[in-house]
Amino acid sequence: MEILKVSSKSNPNLVAGALVNILKSDKKAQIHSIGAGALNQAIKSIAIARGYLTPSGQDLRCVPSFLEVEIDKEIKTAIKLEINLV
Amino acid sequence: MEILKVSSKSNPNLVAGALVNILKSDKKAQIHSIGAGALNQAIKSIAIARGYLTPSGQDLRCVPSFLEVEIDKEIKTAIKLEINLV
Repeated sequence: MEILKVSSKSNPNLVAGALVNILKSDKKAQIHSIGAGALNQAIKSIAIARGYLTPSGQDLRCVPSFLEVEIDKEIKTAIKLEINLV
Repeated sequence: MEILKVSSKSNPNLVAGALVNILKSDKKAQIHSIGAGALNQAIKSIAIARGYLTPSGQDLRCVPSFLEVEIDKEIKTAIKLEINLV
């Protein structure tokens, strides 16, 4: 499963393009983000990706969950967004 | 369709409870949020709501999109999360 790590500085249009490429080949993808700014970019990317999919009659669904990740020996709570092509 | 308006100050546990109640009766709901902090609370609420649904063998799917809303005569871009019980 391909995982896109999105930060608050990620460009939602570029993430959307990458997401659509993964979905077209794998039917599913994951986005991980830490913090409100990063999650905001992640969700915007998903909304934009839908616009890339609808012309070919496709759409996506997403499911959020919490994920503990260790960064610099510190445990942080990330949001994992599982995305499926439908 | 019931719409939950979530702000950066919303309590995700309370929003999750409200969301589950709506989903149990209507099978679907919408969450609207404006800004990264509000969206963060909204997504956390959805992740928590999944924990309330799984014991009864249910889950949810969500689909984000952009929404223009007028607040104090100013147009703002909100995120609309459409949530369906599955």
